[in-house]
Amino acid sequence: MIDLVYIGDICQATPSKIVMLVVDGLGGMPHPESGKSELETASLPNLDALARRSACGLTTPVAPGVTPGSGPGHMALLGYDPVKYLMGRGVLEAVGIGVDVRAGDVAARGNLCTVDGDGLLVDRRAGRILTAESAPLVRKLDAIEVTGAEVSAYPVRDHRFVLMLRGGGLETDVSETDPQAEGIAPLAAAALSAGSTATAAAANEFVAKARRALADRDGANMVMLRGFSTRPSLPYMSRVYKLNSAAIAAYPMYRGLARLTGMRVLPTGDSFDDELDTLVESWADHDFFFLHYKPADAAAEDGDFDAKVAALEEVDARIHRILDLKPDVLVVAGDHSTPAVMGAHSWHPVPFLVSSLLTRGDGIEGFTERNCATGSIGRVSATSAMMVALAHAGKLRKYGP
Amino acid sequence: MIDLVYIGDICQATPSKIVMLVVDGLGGMPHPESGKSELETASLPNLDALARRSACGLTTPVAPGVTPGSGPGHMALLGYDPVKYLMGRGVLEAVGIGVDVRAGDVAARGNLCTVDGDGLLVDRRAGRILTAESAPLVRKLDAIEVTGAEVSAYPVRDHRFVLMLRGGGLETDVSETDPQAEGIAPLAAAALSAGSTATAAAANEFVAKARRALADRDGANMVMLRGFSTRPSLPYMSRVYKLNSAAIAAYPMYRGLARLTGMRVLPTGDSFDDELDTLVESWADHDFFFLHYKPADAAAEDGDFDAKVAALEEVDARIHRILDLKPDVLVVAGDHSTPAVMGAHSWHPVPFLVSSLLTRGDGIEGFTERNCATGSIGRVSATSAMMVALAHAGKLRKYGP
Repeated sequence: MIDLVYIGDICQATPSKIVMLVVDGLGGMPHPESGKSELETASLPNLDALARRSACGLTTPVAPGVTPGSGPGHMALLGYDPVKYLMGRGVLEAVGIGVDVRAGDVAARGNLCTVDGDGLLVDRRAGRILTAESAPLVRKLDAIEVTGAEVSAYPVRDHRFVLMLRGGGLETDVSETDPQAEGIAPLAAAALSAGSTATAAAANEFVAKARRALADRDGANMVMLRGFSTRPSLPYMSRVYKLNSAAIAAYPMYRGLARLTGMRVLPTGDSFDDELDTLVESWADHDFFFLHYKPADAAAEDGDFDAKVAALEEVDARIHRILDLKPDVLVVAGDHSTPAVMGAHSWHPVPFLVSSLLTRGDGIEGFTERNCATGSIGRVSATSAMMVALAHAGKLRKYGP
Repeated sequence: MIDLVYIGDICQATPSKIVMLVVDGLGGMPHPESGKSELETASLPNLDALARRSACGLTTPVAPGVTPGSGPGHMALLGYDPVKYLMGRGVLEAVGIGVDVRAGDVAARGNLCTVDGDGLLVDRRAGRILTAESAPLVRKLDAIEVTGAEVSAYPVRDHRFVLMLRGGGLETDVSETDPQAEGIAPLAAAALSAGSTATAAAANEFVAKARRALADRDGANMVMLRGFSTRPSLPYMSRVYKLNSAAIAAYPMYRGLARLTGMRVLPTGDSFDDELDTLVESWADHDFFFLHYKPADAAAEDGDFDAKVAALEEVDARIHRILDLKPDVLVVAGDHSTPAVMGAHSWHPVPFLVSSLLTRGDGIEGFTERNCATGSIGRVSATSAMMVALAHAGKLRKYGP
């Protein structure tokens, strides 16, 4: 892989436009009864036709066998080495909801949870409490004060919130407090290296005070923290690639990730049609659009094969709205596979297609895992996706004499 | 990729012989009318038969999406990381015509060009003036003197020449003077870092004096410079691989590249038959032959699909002259793709075959982009080509206990 920092030399700004549609959790696995994956089961006439005239392949998000979180999966698709530029969950969530995370601030992802009278976990997500009910609780948390750090707490959605600690000398090497099981007590945050002692102490003080602040409640009466992290130092993709790039994403975390990589994040609504409306409205203003589609992953994480099929069919039914704009390059990619039969992210390579006037058509039958394996792009690192897209858009000059 | 410097430990000298035939610009794209690429259109009975009994694949010259110049494309095929060992145009041209470039010398590629009375470019290549006419002009340039550097100018071919600057403290981070467009004036050379100020000043003084020296002419009355570079520090492939290697190439740049990598460059003529005569005559003297075939790239760069097809058919008609020598290993590779429909180098993966007694035949139908995609070697970095060739020649020992 060429490191992003060397690529700038061969990038050139051109009027051509690229759309990168990331279908979250795109790849799947066969249903045990039908032997067909979600992509093979879904009726995808438009994506199949697109694949036939595209260059296709399979991307490996991080490395063979490695299951990425959403952060590394997306970072790789945007051309960042996902190992070198690993971003923490806390900072992703914080930036995603528009929190001004400064260098040295520590952000953590918080969950409201429910414990019994003995402090043992009854529900790690507090019954997926709705935002309307959780937001006032997070405002209580925001009022907490701890020694050595300024505390802020921000509601995200449902049971999720962000904890921000601001103060001198806070490092992020702190263990999570979620034991990942019920019937036991949340863990104490532990400093995993000497420099993180103050952060762990502040986190534990915050949790203890949160427990007292919520003690009068039956549910959502405790908090857990994970993903302690700070703002990373990233080269901005827009600058490196000489793109005027925009992100359209309904979910906060992806907006946060896009913001950290230097994209302009466009306001949009909750549905794919809302996102597509935003794409149409802002078409003239940008030459690169990162368009994020979440429902395929959400359905597969719930283990709902049919819902993932339906989500893929929704993409297929709407893709004409992108094609009608006549992008010079359309990439359809996934940040990782989420096979519904696993109900979780997986390491399986992810279908990938790039369509442009310079693709010759690989002659594959449709946009599936098995077909893409025989495409002309072959199996590539996901970090190659941007390079291929830029090349097809005429945005990469020749390298070397 | 294993860096070249580590490979030497497992290389062993043997009597076996390897021929690496590099068909410049080998890969292509389908003609819009026929849907067939140059390789698919050409009648290549001998290459197709060879491919059927060979191990085949596709090489990626630098990285997916990256279009290489000829330098990086060849460096990769010879096993050098083309990013780590990037060579400048000037030094490639200089060494190619036999100029003794020493460490610290700065070489630039020069073009004779034509400007009008206002100094605006009329023809960036001076009507592709013939060598017979340009050589005396370059001798005039050779007589120019500038402050702080010893100047030499050498004719290459047609409008091309090499400028060499010798003196203390000359660095090479200097911008080119060719504006890549006509109707405007050539640019001044600019130092892109502090250490290159003296080089830029010497270059600009040279150009000003060249303009005066050629002022009495209507055409070829100005010069432009690019590719300021010095001799790189390269491990010699002959030493690393324990090969007694020879290069046979009609074009100067490829001779230069071969010389910098430590090959013996054999004198040869202009045609492929001349090159093959040289191969036959020197067969007993070497165990590795880098044989360069230029016409496929030249035709495709001109956008001439049919001429590229004819060039490929010329290779096919002559390949028996290599096979008759019974090389232990024959590699047919390309430094990059040059689709005639693009009229330029491209990033597309390049067909590759290796034939030896240890290849089992992949069962592919012929030597085309699509067929090679299904070959047993798969898609590999071009830097793997030498390793595969050495392995098939029995020149690589087992790695590790």
